[in-house]
Amino acid sequence: MITGKNYIGNSLSANGNTTYKTFNPKTNTENEHIYTEATSEEILMAVDLASEAFNTYRTISGVKKATFLNTIADEILALDDTLIQTYMSESGLPEGRAKGERGRTIGQLRTFAKLLEEGSWVEARIDPAQPNREPNPRVDLRKMLVPIGPIVVFGASNFPLAFSTAGGDTASALASGCPVIVKSHPMHAGTGELVASAIAKAAQKTGMPNGVFSNLNSSGIEVGQELVSHQKIKGVGFTGSIRGGRALLDLAAKRKEPIPVFAEMGSINPVVLLPKALETKGKSWAKTYASSITLGTGQFCTNPGLILGIKSDALTKFIETVSAEIIQIKPQCMLHPNIHKAYTTNKSIVRSQKNVKTVANIESAVADNYAQQAVASVDGKTFLQNSSLHEEVFGPFSLVVQCENSDELEEIIANLEGQLTGTIISEENEVATYQHIVNALSQRVGRILFNGVPTGVEVAPAMLHGGPYPASTDSRFTAVGRDAIKRWVRPFSYQDWPNELLPDELKNENPLQIIRLVNNQETKEAL
Amino acid sequence: MITGKNYIGNSLSANGNTTYKTFNPKTNTENEHIYTEATSEEILMAVDLASEAFNTYRTISGVKKATFLNTIADEILALDDTLIQTYMSESGLPEGRAKGERGRTIGQLRTFAKLLEEGSWVEARIDPAQPNREPNPRVDLRKMLVPIGPIVVFGASNFPLAFSTAGGDTASALASGCPVIVKSHPMHAGTGELVASAIAKAAQKTGMPNGVFSNLNSSGIEVGQELVSHQKIKGVGFTGSIRGGRALLDLAAKRKEPIPVFAEMGSINPVVLLPKALETKGKSWAKTYASSITLGTGQFCTNPGLILGIKSDALTKFIETVSAEIIQIKPQCMLHPNIHKAYTTNKSIVRSQKNVKTVANIESAVADNYAQQAVASVDGKTFLQNSSLHEEVFGPFSLVVQCENSDELEEIIANLEGQLTGTIISEENEVATYQHIVNALSQRVGRILFNGVPTGVEVAPAMLHGGPYPASTDSRFTAVGRDAIKRWVRPFSYQDWPNELLPDELKNENPLQIIRLVNNQETKEAL
Repeated sequence: MITGKNYIGNSLSANGNTTYKTFNPKTNTENEHIYTEATSEEILMAVDLASEAFNTYRTISGVKKATFLNTIADEILALDDTLIQTYMSESGLPEGRAKGERGRTIGQLRTFAKLLEEGSWVEARIDPAQPNREPNPRVDLRKMLVPIGPIVVFGASNFPLAFSTAGGDTASALASGCPVIVKSHPMHAGTGELVASAIAKAAQKTGMPNGVFSNLNSSGIEVGQELVSHQKIKGVGFTGSIRGGRALLDLAAKRKEPIPVFAEMGSINPVVLLPKALETKGKSWAKTYASSITLGTGQFCTNPGLILGIKSDALTKFIETVSAEIIQIKPQCMLHPNIHKAYTTNKSIVRSQKNVKTVANIESAVADNYAQQAVASVDGKTFLQNSSLHEEVFGPFSLVVQCENSDELEEIIANLEGQLTGTIISEENEVATYQHIVNALSQRVGRILFNGVPTGVEVAPAMLHGGPYPASTDSRFTAVGRDAIKRWVRPFSYQDWPNELLPDELKNENPLQIIRLVNNQETKEAL
Repeated sequence: MITGKNYIGNSLSANGNTTYKTFNPKTNTENEHIYTEATSEEILMAVDLASEAFNTYRTISGVKKATFLNTIADEILALDDTLIQTYMSESGLPEGRAKGERGRTIGQLRTFAKLLEEGSWVEARIDPAQPNREPNPRVDLRKMLVPIGPIVVFGASNFPLAFSTAGGDTASALASGCPVIVKSHPMHAGTGELVASAIAKAAQKTGMPNGVFSNLNSSGIEVGQELVSHQKIKGVGFTGSIRGGRALLDLAAKRKEPIPVFAEMGSINPVVLLPKALETKGKSWAKTYASSITLGTGQFCTNPGLILGIKSDALTKFIETVSAEIIQIKPQCMLHPNIHKAYTTNKSIVRSQKNVKTVANIESAVADNYAQQAVASVDGKTFLQNSSLHEEVFGPFSLVVQCENSDELEEIIANLEGQLTGTIISEENEVATYQHIVNALSQRVGRILFNGVPTGVEVAPAMLHGGPYPASTDSRFTAVGRDAIKRWVRPFSYQDWPNELLPDELKNENPLQIIRLVNNQETKEAL
């Protein structure tokens, strides 16, 4: 049941005066529930509770934390159709997507639960004492990863479940042993509260300390700012715009104790069409890309917003086909009037730039908040000179750049900002002769694809979702997959510590049977 | 041979007009050689060369990079007595220390070489395609760690070899595949140039690209600032003061593309004396600590600057003994007149604070630049209220805090800034009844010790040298041990990439025979 209140730990609270509603973009009307923004006092209460909870939660065993995560997954499933309907009414996204995203969210929670049950993720290293070493004896040293403290997670507009309340940031932070305070996304406050209720229920059922999780409503930027500035907060997860992410990064950098901010931000996900591939399979790729550009109304961070090729008849043909295909696709609803408005504005800005030619645009009227997908084209020289063309147009839009030659193509790639993904479309063996292009692209992206589409981010150990700035604020970490847990931990060493007082992960007898690096060799053996 | 010039890649260059000399603190005279500070043009040349070198160096095999590192070690040894004498004349440190630190430097280089030869450090993860998975097929994903780009390393005043030109930061960055530009420390410019010559020679002998290493002279802060601000620089390693480290962190945070700064800064390394241990072994610990406080003239970042105990006769006795012992120790020379001056000033500031009692201080005259070691004492309440007492006095000094009770002790620990180390001195089983103290201390430090001294940082896989801010700017990484390489890398994913074009680490056949995570299971097997 939606109450519109904040979860301060396990308690519902609504002491503030600022209220707001969510919006159904499909019906173009407000939804019924009223949400009360968290007050400064409520923020402080949540932070203090999280800080206290950390003292206990950080020492809870991996197996117990795994039960907590699995129970969250169960409780989310138990919300059943209430959750799906609320999700749809707050995002305009279809039921299939809602259920798919719920599946992904559940899957992430269970993946981290498995990681905790197995236990080796803590990177235990043991260098036993060598009392007889010359000239100095060696002390006993043991190291493992430990949680850094309370984390603030900002819900993402485009993933009300998988990158929000119980999404990847929350799941990985809770798995690491860090309490989480979610700054709920105002566009899907109801979905957020429902999921928060599932987490609170799971925390109580599995005996987790009160304050291990809180969910704060917020319609503006102040709640988030107060949270990130608080000295007891030790890390931040964010998915959203470059402006929002950078503002948080700057805020965190100015603190007396700076803290890490993992912001996964904008990306135009360049796609390079090599000449032979264009000649032989240009038509088929054009169809594939018309579909990828419009998938989820173009509202994926891996949406292919930039397509690069070398001027040729085949490229002209590709542009014609992608244009013809994309206008055949039925326009879809966007997440929110604000997002729709930004799309329309940003698309117009690009289309109005000098030398930019609109090659496809849905001109016929569409319902309110529905996006008119478009494709534009420009020459390489103009693209190089006009950096406004490098900016993301969030929505179903892509810009095709026609380069003079492969040198210009390489120069363009080398001058791109950091990106989540880069894709090479190539005939077999063709890419081998474009190694300089691959090298340049590799240095600008977090994930490189061969003959595919960047949309679709598999949750798997080998996934890297992140990339050089501004794709993310820290290219050294991923937001998706098991390694996302590494964002919330620090290594910690024990020197000559009594065996019985060590955490189980580091005890001589290896009671958890985890893989450890002992004397620089991986082993599951006891000492 | 010392020329006083900068190494821009493999070329010597001295186009500037700003010159300076190093200083021998023992003889209290300037050394003979004249060093020429790098100009802005020379800085740009070094950065451009490094950036170009990165294109090649990042793809060089681990085995070849290992040969490079081992050759650097050989060339440093070949400098023989010239290096040792220069080191001593620029630091005032004795021959034994010079040779010991050289051994540590060589050891670090060879340790990283071994890590590269074995190869598993890249954390290869492979999730093979599942073309028949329902509802969607799974793509093939492969991930490994890759270098981030040119790194700037700032030499440390207190470790002219092990934390400077070819020290841990340089060794780990070169091992990761990142070119390095060293901002040479002005106090030991000669030692720096000699080591730089060894690296340049090794780079040429082993066919590394020109620009993989540069060494820039600098007497002020401008060269470092220009380097850190340059867009082609992708990371920074620093060992030194909080003020210096924070300035670099802020500079890097303000860049259009913020970059990671790993600054290992100040620490007072709290030592907790538990009551029973004081009673039974107080005298012996007092002797041990008098020695630890003065080791290397107190110029170690892990120097025990803060000793905490609960008021008792045994604590009073400890203070008496540590005082009596420390004034027996022969005063030693400090690194530089500036460091000596700062020590004297900071020591006076602490001694002049209200309620602070000097319990030991060498009052007799000493030679220029020699430190008069001291111990002071204060009550817990005063310490809590006066944060100036929490600041590091770099040199042979320690403050003993007499707490009212264990609650006050815990409060003091909880209110400390982040520290490199924390030590518990305890009788067997005693510590088990002080778990709240251990918990509080664990959250403030990077390494916790049982019955030992924090000085002495073993180079081992299980070492964590770092800690919560301001001990270091990023508690999630270590500056010592094999994991130091993780500071300079980012994960990178390949999706559906042709096997023959993948790096060896990710090829089906596992030609390097490294440990990989395949389908979430560790294995050395081929696919």
